[in-house]
Amino acid sequence: MSVHLVGAGPGDPGLITARGLELVRSCDVLVVDELVAQELVAEAPEEALVVSRAGMGQEEINRLLVAYGSAGFDVVRLKGGDPFVFGRGGEEALALAEAGVPFDVVPGVSSIAAVPAAALIPVTHRGVADRVTIASGHGAGGGEPEYGALAAAGGTLVLFMGLERLPRLCAGLVAAGLPGSTPTAVVSRGTLPDQETVTGTLADVAGLAEGLASPALVVVGDVVSVGVSLDAAASARLVA
Amino acid sequence: MSVHLVGAGPGDPGLITARGLELVRSCDVLVVDELVAQELVAEAPEEALVVSRAGMGQEEINRLLVAYGSAGFDVVRLKGGDPFVFGRGGEEALALAEAGVPFDVVPGVSSIAAVPAAALIPVTHRGVADRVTIASGHGAGGGEPEYGALAAAGGTLVLFMGLERLPRLCAGLVAAGLPGSTPTAVVSRGTLPDQETVTGTLADVAGLAEGLASPALVVVGDVVSVGVSLDAAASARLVA
Ligand SMILES: C[S@@+](CC[C@H](N)C(=O)[O-])C[C@H]1O[C@@H](n2cnc3c(N)ncnc32)[C@H](O)[C@@H]1O
Ligand SMILES: C[S@@+](CC[C@H](N)C(=O)[O-])C[C@H]1O[C@@H](n2cnc3c(N)ncnc32)[C@H](O)[C@@H]1O
Repeated sequence: MSVHLVGAGPGDPGLITARGLELVRSCDVLVVDELVAQELVAEAPEEALVVSRAGMGQEEINRLLVAYGSAGFDVVRLKGGDPFVFGRGGEEALALAEAGVPFDVVPGVSSIAAVPAAALIPVTHRGVADRVTIASGHGAGGGEPEYGALAAAGGTLVLFMGLERLPRLCAGLVAAGLPGSTPTAVVSRGTLPDQETVTGTLADVAGLAEGLASPALVVVGDVVSVGVSLDAAASARLVA
Repeated sequence: MSVHLVGAGPGDPGLITARGLELVRSCDVLVVDELVAQELVAEAPEEALVVSRAGMGQEEINRLLVAYGSAGFDVVRLKGGDPFVFGRGGEEALALAEAGVPFDVVPGVSSIAAVPAAALIPVTHRGVADRVTIASGHGAGGGEPEYGALAAAGGTLVLFMGLERLPRLCAGLVAAGLPGSTPTAVVSRGTLPDQETVTGTLADVAGLAEGLASPALVVVGDVVSVGVSLDAAASARLVA
Protein backbone atom coordinates (compact mmCIF):
# COMPACT_ATOMS: atom_id res chain seq x y z
CA MET A 1 0.00 0.00 0.00
CA SER A 2 2.67 2.38 -1.03
CA VAL A 3 4.82 3.36 -3.98
CA HIS A 4 8.30 1.90 -4.18
CA LEU A 5 10.80 3.76 -6.37
CA VAL A 6 13.06 0.86 -7.31
CA GLY A 7 16.33 0.81 -9.25
CA ALA A 8 16.45 -1.98 -11.84
CA GLY A 9 20.21 -1.79 -12.39
CA PRO A 10 22.07 -0.98 -15.61
CA GLY A 11 20.60 -3.61 -17.94
CA ASP A 12 21.54 -7.18 -17.00
CA PRO A 13 18.46 -8.42 -15.12
CA GLY A 14 20.69 -10.25 -12.58
CA LEU A 15 21.81 -6.85 -11.30
CA ILE A 16 18.52 -5.86 -9.69
CA THR A 17 18.72 -5.98 -5.87
CA ALA A 18 17.23 -8.88 -3.91
CA ARG A 19 14.77 -6.44 -2.26
CA GLY A 20 13.81 -4.87 -5.60
CA LEU A 21 13.08 -8.26 -7.14
CA GLU A 22 10.96 -9.26 -4.15
CA LEU A 23 8.88 -6.07 -4.53
CA VAL A 24 8.39 -6.63 -8.29
CA ARG A 25 7.23 -10.18 -7.57
CA SER A 26 4.48 -9.03 -5.21
CA CYS A 27 3.27 -5.72 -6.71
CA ASP A 28 -0.21 -4.79 -7.94
CA VAL A 29 1.02 -2.22 -10.46
CA LEU A 30 4.41 -2.05 -12.21
CA VAL A 31 5.35 1.21 -13.96
CA VAL A 32 8.51 0.69 -16.04
CA ASP A 33 11.04 2.71 -17.99
CA GLU A 34 11.71 1.73 -21.58
CA LEU A 35 15.25 0.55 -20.82
CA VAL A 36 14.20 -1.93 -18.11
CA ALA A 37 14.86 -5.60 -19.03
CA GLN A 38 11.85 -7.63 -20.19
CA GLU A 39 13.03 -10.45 -17.89
CA LEU A 40 12.28 -8.18 -14.92
CA VAL A 41 8.86 -7.15 -16.22
CA ALA A 42 8.10 -10.87 -16.58
CA GLU A 43 8.73 -11.30 -12.83
CA ALA A 44 5.58 -9.31 -11.94
CA PRO A 45 2.58 -11.40 -10.83
CA GLU A 46 0.36 -12.46 -13.72
CA GLU A 47 -2.53 -10.41 -12.35
CA ALA A 48 -0.43 -7.23 -11.95
CA LEU A 49 -1.07 -4.23 -14.18
CA VAL A 50 2.06 -3.38 -16.18
CA VAL A 51 2.35 0.18 -17.47
CA SER A 52 5.18 1.34 -19.75
CA ARG A 53 6.14 4.97 -19.39
CA ALA A 54 7.10 5.14 -23.07
CA GLY A 55 5.69 8.33 -24.53
CA MET A 56 4.62 9.82 -21.18
CA GLY A 57 5.91 13.13 -19.89
CA GLN A 58 7.28 13.41 -16.35
CA GLU A 59 4.15 15.23 -15.07
CA GLU A 60 1.96 12.46 -16.39
CA ILE A 61 4.04 9.77 -14.65
CA ASN A 62 3.93 11.72 -11.39
CA ARG A 63 0.12 11.96 -11.63
CA LEU A 64 -0.16 8.27 -12.45
CA LEU A 65 1.97 7.22 -9.45
CA VAL A 66 -0.04 9.47 -7.13
CA ALA A 67 -3.31 8.05 -8.51
CA TYR A 68 -2.35 4.37 -8.16
CA GLY A 69 -0.74 5.01 -4.78
CA SER A 70 -3.78 6.89 -3.38
CA ALA A 71 -6.05 4.13 -4.63
CA GLY A 72 -4.27 1.79 -2.22
CA PHE A 73 -2.33 -0.31 -4.72
CA ASP A 74 1.13 -1.65 -4.05
CA VAL A 75 3.03 0.13 -6.83
CA VAL A 76 6.56 -0.53 -8.05
CA ARG A 77 8.08 2.25 -10.14
CA LEU A 78 10.98 0.40 -11.77
CA LYS A 79 13.63 2.77 -13.12
CA GLY A 80 16.88 2.13 -15.02
CA GLY A 81 20.01 2.09 -12.84
CA ASP A 82 19.50 3.97 -9.58
CA PRO A 83 16.32 6.09 -9.18
CA PHE A 84 18.25 9.11 -7.85
CA VAL A 85 21.02 9.26 -10.50
CA PHE A 86 19.84 11.27 -13.53
CA GLY A 87 16.57 9.44 -13.08
CA ARG A 88 14.18 12.18 -11.92
CA GLY A 89 13.34 9.95 -8.96
CA GLY A 90 13.53 13.02 -6.72
CA GLU A 91 10.69 14.63 -8.66
CA GLU A 92 8.54 11.51 -8.37
CA ALA A 93 9.27 11.31 -4.64
CA LEU A 94 8.34 15.00 -4.16
CA ALA A 95 5.06 14.55 -6.04
CA LEU A 96 4.19 11.55 -3.85
CA ALA A 97 5.21 13.27 -0.62
CA GLU A 98 3.20 16.40 -1.48
CA ALA A 99 0.14 14.28 -2.30
CA GLY A 100 0.47 12.44 1.02
CA VAL A 101 1.14 9.08 -0.64
CA PRO A 102 3.51 6.80 1.31
CA PHE A 103 6.64 5.91 -0.69
CA ASP A 104 10.10 4.52 -0.26
CA VAL A 105 13.26 4.39 -2.33
CA VAL A 106 15.07 1.12 -3.07
CA PRO A 107 18.43 2.07 -4.57
CA GLY A 108 19.79 0.21 -7.56
CA VAL A 109 23.12 -0.46 -9.25
CA SER A 110 23.75 2.74 -11.20
CA SER A 111 25.60 2.65 -14.48
CA ILE A 112 28.09 5.13 -12.87
CA ALA A 113 30.51 2.37 -11.92
CA ALA A 114 28.79 -0.78 -13.25
CA VAL A 115 29.01 0.10 -16.93
CA PRO A 116 32.73 1.00 -16.77
CA ALA A 117 33.25 -2.20 -14.68
CA ALA A 118 31.58 -4.23 -17.41
CA ALA A 119 34.47 -3.04 -19.61
CA LEU A 120 36.90 -3.80 -16.73
CA ILE A 121 37.46 -0.08 -16.06
CA PRO A 122 37.62 0.79 -12.32
CA VAL A 123 36.37 4.38 -11.90
CA THR A 124 38.76 4.87 -8.97
CA HIS A 125 42.20 3.26 -8.83
CA ARG A 126 45.00 3.82 -6.33
CA GLY A 127 47.63 6.15 -7.73
CA VAL A 128 45.55 6.79 -10.87
CA ALA A 129 42.27 8.47 -9.88
CA ASP A 130 41.04 9.32 -6.39
CA ARG A 131 37.91 11.14 -7.53
CA VAL A 132 35.15 10.85 -10.11
CA THR A 133 32.89 13.49 -11.61
CA ILE A 134 29.67 12.34 -13.19
CA ALA A 135 27.77 14.70 -15.45
CA SER A 136 25.18 14.82 -18.15
CA GLY A 137 26.36 15.18 -21.74
CA HIS A 138 23.97 18.08 -22.11
CA GLY A 139 23.63 20.97 -19.69
CA ALA A 140 20.45 22.14 -17.97
CA GLY A 141 17.77 22.93 -20.55
CA GLY A 142 19.56 20.91 -23.23
CA GLY A 143 22.44 23.38 -23.61
CA GLU A 144 26.16 22.65 -23.43
CA PRO A 145 27.68 21.19 -20.25
CA GLU A 146 30.11 23.40 -18.31
CA TYR A 147 33.25 22.22 -20.03
CA GLY A 148 35.54 24.42 -17.93
CA ALA A 149 34.41 22.87 -14.66
CA LEU A 150 34.52 19.34 -16.08
CA ALA A 151 38.01 19.79 -17.50
CA ALA A 152 39.25 21.20 -14.17
CA ALA A 153 37.66 18.50 -12.01
CA GLY A 154 40.62 16.09 -12.21
CA GLY A 155 40.19 12.37 -11.69
CA THR A 156 37.78 10.32 -13.78
CA LEU A 157 34.91 11.85 -15.80
CA VAL A 158 31.80 9.76 -16.43
CA LEU A 159 29.39 11.32 -18.92
CA PHE A 160 25.77 10.19 -19.20
CA MET A 161 23.51 10.75 -22.19
CA GLY A 162 26.39 11.90 -24.38
CA LEU A 163 26.45 9.50 -27.35
CA GLU A 164 24.54 11.73 -29.78
CA ARG A 165 26.80 14.71 -29.22
CA LEU A 166 30.08 12.86 -28.67
CA PRO A 167 32.15 14.88 -31.20
CA ARG A 168 31.09 18.17 -29.55
CA LEU A 169 31.67 16.83 -26.05
CA CYS A 170 35.20 15.69 -26.82
CA ALA A 171 36.03 18.91 -28.64
CA GLY A 172 34.56 20.94 -25.78
CA LEU A 173 36.69 19.18 -23.19
CA VAL A 174 39.86 19.65 -25.28
CA ALA A 175 39.05 23.33 -25.86
CA ALA A 176 38.61 23.68 -22.08
CA GLY A 177 42.11 22.33 -21.45
CA LEU A 178 42.10 18.53 -21.30
CA PRO A 179 44.88 17.00 -23.45
CA GLY A 180 43.64 15.41 -26.70
CA SER A 181 45.66 12.36 -25.64
CA THR A 182 43.47 11.72 -22.55
CA PRO A 183 42.37 8.05 -22.61
CA THR A 184 38.64 7.81 -23.35
CA ALA A 185 36.21 4.91 -23.61
CA VAL A 186 32.65 4.66 -24.86
CA VAL A 187 30.76 1.69 -23.43
CA SER A 188 27.59 0.88 -25.34
CA ARG A 189 24.84 -1.25 -23.76
CA GLY A 190 27.03 -2.14 -20.77
CA THR A 191 26.23 -5.43 -18.94
CA LEU A 192 23.95 -6.53 -21.81
CA PRO A 193 24.75 -9.41 -24.20
CA ASP A 194 25.41 -6.98 -27.07
CA GLN A 195 27.76 -4.73 -25.05
CA GLU A 196 30.44 -2.99 -27.13
CA THR A 197 33.38 -0.90 -25.95
CA VAL A 198 35.51 1.47 -27.97
CA THR A 199 38.68 2.94 -26.46
CA GLY A 200 40.85 5.73 -27.76
CA THR A 201 41.61 9.29 -26.80
CA LEU A 202 39.56 12.46 -26.52
CA ALA A 203 40.94 13.34 -29.96
CA ASP A 204 39.91 10.19 -31.78
CA VAL A 205 37.21 8.34 -29.83
CA ALA A 206 34.25 10.11 -31.44
CA GLY A 207 35.27 8.81 -34.87
CA LEU A 208 35.90 5.31 -33.51
CA ALA A 209 32.55 5.20 -31.69
CA GLU A 210 30.44 6.08 -34.73
CA GLY A 211 27.51 3.73 -35.10
CA LEU A 212 27.54 2.46 -31.50
CA ALA A 213 24.08 1.79 -30.08
CA SER A 214 22.57 3.64 -27.13
CA PRO A 215 22.47 3.74 -24.20
CA ALA A 216 26.17 4.48 -23.89
CA LEU A 217 28.43 5.93 -21.22
CA VAL A 218 31.60 7.93 -21.84
CA VAL A 219 34.56 7.47 -19.47
CA VAL A 220 37.46 9.94 -19.62
CA GLY A 221 40.74 9.60 -17.75
CA ASP A 222 43.73 7.41 -16.99
CA VAL A 223 41.56 4.66 -15.46
CA VAL A 224 40.65 3.78 -19.07
CA SER A 225 44.25 2.60 -19.51
CA VAL A 226 43.96 0.46 -16.36
CA GLY A 227 40.94 -1.16 -18.00
CA VAL A 228 42.86 -1.78 -21.21
CA SER A 229 45.73 -3.46 -19.26
CA LEU A 230 43.29 -5.54 -17.24
CA ASP A 231 41.51 -6.61 -20.38
CA ALA A 232 44.79 -7.52 -22.09
CA ALA A 233 46.03 -9.52 -19.09
CA ALA A 234 42.69 -11.32 -18.78
CA SER A 235 42.57 -12.14 -22.51
CA ALA A 236 46.20 -13.33 -22.61
CA ARG A 237 45.12 -15.88 -20.02
CA LEU A 238 42.35 -17.13 -22.31
CA VAL A 239 44.72 -17.59 -25.24
CA ALA A 240 47.52 -19.16 -23.19
CA MET B 1 36.25 -22.24 -10.79
CA SER B 2 36.97 -18.60 -10.80
CA VAL B 3 37.08 -15.58 -8.53
CA HIS B 4 34.03 -13.32 -8.45
CA LEU B 5 34.58 -9.77 -7.21
CA VAL B 6 31.10 -9.07 -5.88
CA GLY B 7 29.59 -5.86 -4.48
CA ALA B 8 27.56 -6.45 -1.30
CA GLY B 9 25.82 -3.07 -1.37
CA PRO B 10 25.98 -0.31 1.25
CA GLY B 11 24.89 -2.24 4.35
CA ASP B 12 21.26 -3.40 4.22
CA PRO B 13 21.58 -7.07 3.17
CA GLY B 14 18.51 -6.73 0.89
CA LEU B 15 20.58 -4.47 -1.36
CA ILE B 16 22.92 -7.15 -2.70
CA THR B 17 22.17 -8.00 -6.34
CA ALA B 18 20.26 -11.15 -7.28
CA ARG B 19 23.38 -12.44 -9.11
CA GLY B 20 25.65 -11.64 -6.18
CA LEU B 21 23.42 -13.50 -3.75
CA GLU B 22 23.29 -16.52 -6.06
CA LEU B 23 27.11 -16.61 -6.20
CA VAL B 24 27.43 -16.35 -2.40
CA ARG B 25 24.97 -19.22 -2.02
CA SER B 26 27.06 -21.56 -4.17
CA CYS B 27 30.68 -20.60 -3.41
CA ASP B 28 33.48 -22.75 -1.97
CA VAL B 29 35.33 -19.82 -0.39
CA LEU B 30 33.94 -16.47 0.76
CA VAL B 31 36.41 -13.66 1.48
CA VAL B 32 34.61 -10.75 3.15
CA ASP B 33 35.24 -7.16 4.16
CA GLU B 34 34.57 -6.17 7.76
CA LEU B 35 31.62 -3.96 6.82
CA VAL B 36 29.70 -6.73 5.01
CA ALA B 37 26.42 -7.72 6.72
CA GLN B 38 26.47 -10.94 8.76
CA GLU B 39 23.16 -11.89 7.10
CA LEU B 40 25.03 -12.17 3.79
CA VAL B 41 27.88 -14.20 5.26
CA ALA B 42 25.23 -16.55 6.67
CA GLU B 43 24.00 -17.18 3.09
CA ALA B 44 27.19 -19.08 2.19
CA PRO B 45 26.88 -22.88 2.07
CA GLU B 46 27.58 -24.52 5.40
CA GLU B 47 30.63 -26.30 4.01
CA ALA B 48 32.12 -23.10 2.52
CA LEU B 49 35.28 -21.61 3.97
CA VAL B 50 34.63 -18.07 5.23
CA VAL B 51 37.65 -15.77 5.52
CA SER B 52 37.45 -12.27 7.01
CA ARG B 53 39.92 -9.79 5.62
CA ALA B 54 40.08 -7.99 8.96
CA GLY B 55 43.70 -7.23 9.75
CA MET B 56 45.03 -8.27 6.33
CA GLY B 57 46.92 -5.91 4.08
CA GLN B 58 45.93 -5.52 0.43
CA GLU B 59 48.92 -7.56 -0.81
CA GLU B 60 47.95 -10.42 1.45
CA ILE B 61 44.36 -10.42 0.17
CA ASN B 62 45.58 -10.39 -3.42
CA ARG B 63 47.83 -13.40 -2.72
CA LEU B 64 45.01 -15.24 -0.96
CA LEU B 65 42.59 -14.69 -3.86
CA VAL B 66 45.20 -15.89 -6.36
CA ALA B 67 45.94 -18.96 -4.22
CA TYR B 68 42.32 -20.04 -3.77
CA GLY B 69 41.49 -19.22 -7.39
CA SER B 70 44.48 -21.21 -8.78
CA ALA B 71 43.55 -24.14 -6.58
CA GLY B 72 40.31 -24.39 -8.54
CA PHE B 73 37.88 -23.16 -5.88
CA ASP B 74 34.85 -21.08 -6.67
CA VAL B 75 35.72 -17.92 -4.75
CA VAL B 76 33.47 -14.98 -3.90
CA ARG B 77 35.30 -11.84 -2.82
CA LEU B 78 32.44 -9.90 -1.20
CA LYS B 79 33.22 -6.20 -0.89
CA GLY B 80 31.25 -3.31 0.63
CA GLY B 81 29.24 -1.25 -1.89
CA ASP B 82 30.62 -1.58 -5.41
CA PRO B 83 34.00 -3.32 -5.87
CA PHE B 84 35.32 -0.58 -8.18
CA VAL B 85 34.37 2.49 -6.09
CA PHE B 86 37.11 3.24 -3.54
CA GLY B 87 37.25 -0.51 -3.03
CA ARG B 88 40.65 -1.46 -4.48
CA GLY B 89 38.80 -3.98 -6.63
CA GLY B 90 40.94 -2.91 -9.58
CA GLU B 91 44.07 -4.02 -7.71
CA GLU B 92 42.55 -7.40 -6.90
CA ALA B 93 41.47 -7.81 -10.53
CA LEU B 94 44.97 -6.93 -11.79
CA ALA B 95 46.60 -9.43 -9.41
CA LEU B 96 44.25 -12.17 -10.62
CA ALA B 97 44.68 -11.28 -14.31
CA GLU B 98 48.47 -11.23 -13.98
CA ALA B 99 48.45 -14.62 -12.24
CA GLY B 100 46.25 -16.06 -14.99
CA VAL B 101 43.33 -16.72 -12.64
CA PRO B 102 39.88 -16.33 -14.28
CA PHE B 103 37.77 -13.66 -12.58
CA ASP B 104 34.72 -11.52 -13.14
CA VAL B 105 33.24 -8.42 -11.56
CA VAL B 106 29.66 -8.31 -10.29
CA PRO B 107 28.87 -4.67 -9.57
CA GLY B 108 27.03 -3.67 -6.43
CA VAL B 109 24.96 -0.78 -5.13
CA SER B 110 27.57 1.79 -4.17
CA SER B 111 26.99 4.13 -1.26
CA ILE B 112 27.52 7.01 -3.78
CA ALA B 113 23.78 7.44 -4.34
CA ALA B 114 22.25 4.81 -2.03
CA VAL B 115 23.40 6.35 1.25
CA PRO B 116 22.16 9.87 0.33
CA ALA B 117 18.92 8.22 -0.93
CA ALA B 118 18.47 6.52 2.44
CA ALA B 119 18.27 10.08 3.82
CA LEU B 120 15.93 11.01 0.90
CA ILE B 121 18.66 13.12 -0.76
CA PRO B 122 18.76 12.73 -4.56
CA VAL B 123 22.38 13.31 -5.70
CA THR B 124 21.11 14.82 -8.97
CA HIS B 125 17.92 16.88 -9.19
CA ARG B 126 16.57 18.87 -12.11
CA GLY B 127 17.31 22.55 -11.72
CA VAL B 128 19.41 21.92 -8.60
CA ALA B 129 22.40 19.73 -9.50
CA ASP B 130 23.25 18.24 -12.86
CA ARG B 131 26.59 16.78 -11.81
CA VAL B 132 28.19 14.98 -8.89
CA THR B 133 31.82 14.74 -7.80
CA ILE B 134 32.79 11.89 -5.53
CA ALA B 135 36.07 12.03 -3.69
CA SER B 136 37.93 10.59 -0.77
CA GLY B 137 38.12 12.66 2.41
CA HIS B 138 41.86 12.15 2.37
CA GLY B 139 44.12 12.67 -0.63
CA ALA B 140 46.53 10.14 -2.13
CA GLY B 141 48.98 8.95 0.52
CA GLY B 142 46.72 10.14 3.33
CA GLY B 143 47.30 13.85 2.68
CA GLU B 144 44.71 16.55 2.16
CA PRO B 145 42.23 16.31 -0.73
CA GLU B 146 42.51 18.92 -3.49
CA TYR B 147 40.10 21.42 -1.99
CA GLY B 148 40.45 23.87 -4.87
CA ALA B 149 39.28 21.34 -7.45
CA LEU B 150 36.47 20.07 -5.23
CA ALA B 151 35.22 23.59 -4.47
CA ALA B 152 35.27 24.47 -8.19
CA ALA B 153 33.53 21.28 -9.34
CA GLY B 154 29.99 22.63 -8.97
CA GLY B 155 27.01 20.33 -8.48
CA THR B 156 26.89 17.85 -5.61
CA LEU B 157 29.98 16.71 -3.66
CA VAL B 158 29.96 13.25 -2.09
CA LEU B 159 32.89 12.61 0.25
CA PHE B 160 33.89 9.10 1.32
CA MET B 161 35.98 8.25 4.36
CA GLY B 162 35.73 11.76 5.76
CA LEU B 163 34.12 11.40 9.19
CA GLU B 164 37.34 11.50 11.23
CA ARG B 165 38.54 14.69 9.60
CA LEU B 166 35.20 16.40 9.08
CA PRO B 167 36.15 19.76 10.69
CA ARG B 168 39.24 20.04 8.44
CA LEU B 169 37.30 18.98 5.35
CA CYS B 170 34.59 21.59 5.87
CA ALA B 171 37.11 24.32 6.69
CA GLY B 172 39.19 23.35 3.65
CA LEU B 173 36.21 23.63 1.31
CA VAL B 174 35.22 27.03 2.72
CA ALA B 175 38.82 28.28 2.48
CA ALA B 176 38.80 27.14 -1.16
CA GLY B 177 35.74 29.26 -1.91
CA LEU B 178 32.53 27.36 -1.10
CA PRO B 179 30.11 29.50 0.95
CA GLY B 180 29.87 28.51 4.64
CA SER B 181 26.11 28.44 4.10
CA THR B 182 26.29 25.53 1.62
CA PRO B 183 23.81 22.83 2.76
CA THR B 184 25.69 19.78 4.04
CA ALA B 185 24.58 16.41 5.39
CA VAL B 186 26.43 13.61 7.14
CA VAL B 187 24.75 10.23 6.79
CA SER B 188 26.01 7.66 9.27
CA ARG B 189 25.44 3.93 8.72
CA GLY B 190 23.14 4.57 5.77
CA THR B 191 20.53 1.85 4.95
CA LEU B 192 21.22 0.14 8.31
CA PRO B 193 18.73 0.01 11.21
CA ASP B 194 20.82 2.46 13.25
CA GLN B 195 21.17 5.01 10.42
CA GLU B 196 21.51 8.64 11.58
CA THR B 197 21.53 11.81 9.50
CA VAL B 198 22.69 15.26 10.52
CA THR B 199 22.03 18.24 8.26
CA GLY B 200 23.43 21.72 8.49
CA THR B 201 25.86 23.86 6.55
CA LEU B 202 29.56 23.63 5.77
CA ALA B 203 30.05 26.06 8.65
CA ASP B 204 28.23 24.12 11.35
CA VAL B 205 27.82 20.48 10.32
CA ALA B 206 31.10 19.27 11.84
CA GLY B 207 29.95 20.35 15.30
CA LEU B 208 26.49 18.84 14.80
CA ALA B 209 27.93 15.53 13.57
CA GLU B 210 30.21 14.97 16.56
CA GLY B 211 29.83 11.47 17.92
CA LEU B 212 28.24 9.96 14.78
CA ALA B 213 29.29 6.39 14.09
CA SER B 214 31.24 5.26 11.03
CA PRO B 215 30.94 4.49 8.22
CA ALA B 216 29.58 7.86 7.20
CA LEU B 217 29.20 9.78 3.96
CA VAL B 218 29.30 13.56 3.59
CA VAL B 219 27.00 15.23 1.01
CA VAL B 220 27.57 18.88 0.12
CA GLY B 221 25.28 21.00 -2.05
CA ASP B 222 21.75 22.23 -2.65
CA VAL B 223 20.38 18.70 -3.10
CA VAL B 224 20.65 18.42 0.69
CA SER B 225 17.81 20.98 0.91
CA VAL B 226 15.74 18.90 -1.53
CA GLY B 227 16.21 15.99 0.88
CA VAL B 228 15.14 18.12 3.84
CA SER B 229 11.94 19.21 1.99
CA LEU B 230 11.18 15.65 0.93
CA ASP B 231 11.66 14.42 4.46
CA ALA B 232 9.42 17.17 5.86
CA ALA B 233 6.66 16.46 3.31
CA ALA B 234 6.88 12.72 3.95
CA SER B 235 6.78 13.17 7.75
CA ALA B 236 3.87 15.67 7.61
CA ARG B 237 1.94 12.89 5.91
CA LEU B 238 2.64 10.53 8.82
CA VAL B 239 1.44 13.05 11.40
CA ALA B 240 -1.67 14.12 9.46
C1 LIG C 1 18.48 9.02 -18.00
S1 LIG C 1 20.05 8.33 -17.57
C2 LIG C 1 19.56 7.23 -16.29
C3 LIG C 1 20.72 6.71 -15.45
C4 LIG C 1 20.32 5.68 -14.41
N1 LIG C 1 19.38 6.24 -13.44
C5 LIG C 1 21.52 5.07 -13.69
O1 LIG C 1 21.65 5.21 -12.47
O2 LIG C 1 22.33 4.41 -14.37
C6 LIG C 1 20.36 7.29 -18.97
C7 LIG C 1 21.84 7.26 -19.34
O3 LIG C 1 22.52 6.33 -18.50
C8 LIG C 1 23.55 5.68 -19.22
N2 LIG C 1 23.28 4.23 -19.24
C9 LIG C 1 22.26 3.61 -18.62
N3 LIG C 1 22.33 2.27 -18.82
C10 LIG C 1 23.43 2.04 -19.58
C11 LIG C 1 24.05 0.87 -20.12
N4 LIG C 1 23.56 -0.35 -19.91
N5 LIG C 1 25.17 1.02 -20.87
C12 LIG C 1 25.69 2.23 -21.08
N6 LIG C 1 25.16 3.37 -20.60
C13 LIG C 1 24.04 3.29 -19.85
C14 LIG C 1 23.55 6.27 -20.63
O4 LIG C 1 24.48 7.33 -20.65
C15 LIG C 1 22.13 6.79 -20.75
O5 LIG C 1 22.05 7.85 -21.68
C1 LIG D 1 36.58 2.14 1.51
S1 LIG D 1 35.13 3.01 1.06
C2 LIG D 1 34.25 1.75 0.18
C3 LIG D 1 33.10 2.26 -0.66
C4 LIG D 1 32.31 1.16 -1.32
N1 LIG D 1 33.14 0.40 -2.26
C5 LIG D 1 31.06 1.69 -2.03
O1 LIG D 1 30.94 1.57 -3.26
O2 LIG D 1 30.17 2.23 -1.35
C6 LIG D 1 34.29 3.11 2.61
C7 LIG D 1 33.53 4.43 2.76
O3 LIG D 1 32.28 4.34 2.10
C8 LIG D 1 31.29 5.08 2.81
N2 LIG D 1 30.22 4.14 3.23
C9 LIG D 1 30.15 2.83 2.94
N3 LIG D 1 29.02 2.30 3.46
C10 LIG D 1 28.36 3.30 4.08
C11 LIG D 1 27.13 3.38 4.82
N4 LIG D 1 26.34 2.32 4.99
N5 LIG D 1 26.76 4.59 5.33
C12 LIG D 1 27.54 5.67 5.16
N6 LIG D 1 28.71 5.64 4.48
C13 LIG D 1 29.11 4.47 3.94
C14 LIG D 1 31.98 5.71 4.01
O4 LIG D 1 32.39 7.00 3.62
C15 LIG D 1 33.18 4.80 4.19
O5 LIG D 1 34.24 5.50 4.83
